[in-house]
Amino acid sequence: MFDTDLLKEAIKRNKVRSESYGELEYLRFTDDFKEVPRGTVLFKDTVVWGYPHIGRVFQLSTGIREQFSEPFWVEEKVDGYNVRVFQHEGDIYALTRGGYVCAFSTDRVLEFVNQAFFEKHPELVLCMEVAGPENPYVEESPPYVKEDIKFFLFDIMVKNKQGFVPYREKLRLIQEYNLPSVETFGRFEPEQLEDLKTLLRRLDEEKREGVVLKEDSARDKRLKYITSYANLNDIRITSINMLGLPPDYYTNRLLRLALFVEEEGLQKDERLYRDIGEAFLSGLFEACRMTREEGKVRRVFRCRFRNRDRALLFLEQIKHASTHIQVNQLSLQREKDFWLLEFEKVFLNMTGLLGHLLSGGSMID
Amino acid sequence: MFDTDLLKEAIKRNKVRSESYGELEYLRFTDDFKEVPRGTVLFKDTVVWGYPHIGRVFQLSTGIREQFSEPFWVEEKVDGYNVRVFQHEGDIYALTRGGYVCAFSTDRVLEFVNQAFFEKHPELVLCMEVAGPENPYVEESPPYVKEDIKFFLFDIMVKNKQGFVPYREKLRLIQEYNLPSVETFGRFEPEQLEDLKTLLRRLDEEKREGVVLKEDSARDKRLKYITSYANLNDIRITSINMLGLPPDYYTNRLLRLALFVEEEGLQKDERLYRDIGEAFLSGLFEACRMTREEGKVRRVFRCRFRNRDRALLFLEQIKHASTHIQVNQLSLQREKDFWLLEFEKVFLNMTGLLGHLLSGGSMID
Repeated sequence: MFDTDLLKEAIKRNKVRSESYGELEYLRFTDDFKEVPRGTVLFKDTVVWGYPHIGRVFQLSTGIREQFSEPFWVEEKVDGYNVRVFQHEGDIYALTRGGYVCAFSTDRVLEFVNQAFFEKHPELVLCMEVAGPENPYVEESPPYVKEDIKFFLFDIMVKNKQGFVPYREKLRLIQEYNLPSVETFGRFEPEQLEDLKTLLRRLDEEKREGVVLKEDSARDKRLKYITSYANLNDIRITSINMLGLPPDYYTNRLLRLALFVEEEGLQKDERLYRDIGEAFLSGLFEACRMTREEGKVRRVFRCRFRNRDRALLFLEQIKHASTHIQVNQLSLQREKDFWLLEFEKVFLNMTGLLGHLLSGGSMID
Repeated sequence: MFDTDLLKEAIKRNKVRSESYGELEYLRFTDDFKEVPRGTVLFKDTVVWGYPHIGRVFQLSTGIREQFSEPFWVEEKVDGYNVRVFQHEGDIYALTRGGYVCAFSTDRVLEFVNQAFFEKHPELVLCMEVAGPENPYVEESPPYVKEDIKFFLFDIMVKNKQGFVPYREKLRLIQEYNLPSVETFGRFEPEQLEDLKTLLRRLDEEKREGVVLKEDSARDKRLKYITSYANLNDIRITSINMLGLPPDYYTNRLLRLALFVEEEGLQKDERLYRDIGEAFLSGLFEACRMTREEGKVRRVFRCRFRNRDRALLFLEQIKHASTHIQVNQLSLQREKDFWLLEFEKVFLNMTGLLGHLLSGGSMID
């Protein structure tokens, strides 16, 4: 089922950690290790493989020609967080990309997925994006989820196996069980570059994140491509916590924006320049304001649980998993059919540095 | 003269390297080590201490109040590179901040510094900024150096000692030997905050880099503060080689810009936003153009030598010292009283990545 030597070596190299969720115990790959992706999870008799990395192209015209030799399916890439949903010993769980059982996603998933699916297909794993303004992880959300969250299926895996269920089979299962899915835009020939670009211009205008392209071939090759809107929005949303992000976060997005404009031959226009500058500075101004007025740089999250205990469990999980972030519960109260949890993430790097600098501190760089 | 145990330990920790310049041999501290700054250089019987780090404040109003308790001298911070000039066994040398004898600066320094100074004061070390459009290291240059380079004194050190010659003594030596100096703006009381801000607004308009503040006290505390113009210009000039810079280069400058605007209470204006966006993207567009048209992202440097051999030696030095940069000589020819050297720096990270992406390559991030 899972290569014992590989597991032993991974444990020795500190790539595997033991985790628990209630009574459930499992092993979690904390990093990529050889062919095993981060987030791969091992139960006593089952492996749920991690969701693999997908390559990104920065220009469509050359990228399609270079990467694909067959037609490909085009699907929306929804701006949320990735979970793998499956049944284990009669219960349904949702794993985050990193391989934690997420108390929030687990609490809510059965509102979106018909449990009959798992009764019929206990061997399958649904790869879904959870997105919406009231999710506990991601500050961004797609324009068409106006409140709360939704689940969107984009792939199906099989337990104990790497790779995905074939595309047409996925479409059939979506239809049969009425599974909520990301929007699919059909099958494109490599020659339909202009159609694809037209689609992306529309998605950009509609403030959607981008597309995932899946080659209709045995190798099932995938690629992603992100709209300018999403690249800019990433900067806008995160600049309040600029020091908390990986060092290449911004350079990467600037490069994507430049290559997008380069390809589209857009007038290198004032509007985009202005938007980039504003995206960077507006968050920093807000962070300064918070530091002065509240003594901390923070963002407030709210999300809805069915079950109060799972809300508390979720808070423990997120406190435990956060580095350079302090998580504080603000409130947990009944609201109609839900328990509404409000909590804040305090960005400790920004809070510390801005507090120091605004009070006249100096820095050696 | 230099603590033997400290030196032994530094060698053991790999913080010291043996270097040569022609016949001259010396040891160089490649990193800060305990109280020894990077760039400290040891000859047989002499130590030239490294130039120490100077803290930066991000806001003047709080910074002055917090950091200084006495009046302070204000000097221009010139945008160039830092050298330490001294006499050793009858010859004059210029060391870079990192502690290399620089063949270029050494070649030219006696046009700017009267050798009589060193005959009278062989124990002194002149800390100078070399700046101008034809310098081999820095793409920026102050607006008032229209061609070639100039040397500007800002501090004087004593061999074998840390710390600086007192400020008034420095002024006296500048006058006595007619040494070229950075512009000095006089002695400010901590209460003269508005005068200082007015000065900085003027420097900003004149496209100058900023100021160094030196407390008129025994502890000789120093601070630096940079204009918005210079922060923006750093982004504009370097974005062509965005991937070659340290990860916090841009976040640091954006933070400085935000805190400047915050302090000045400027309308958070469109103009600044636009300038920031353009500063980032214009270099990236240029890098794309070069990759397409020339197959490489590069910048051409030219500089003037008196001595042809030193030009060749300089090229060897810079080839040896560069990482992720390929240095190619373009030409070396006589022009009036100089040998004019032209060379290019090819930015290998940008060249590699843009070549890959523009031809349709994908990337996992």
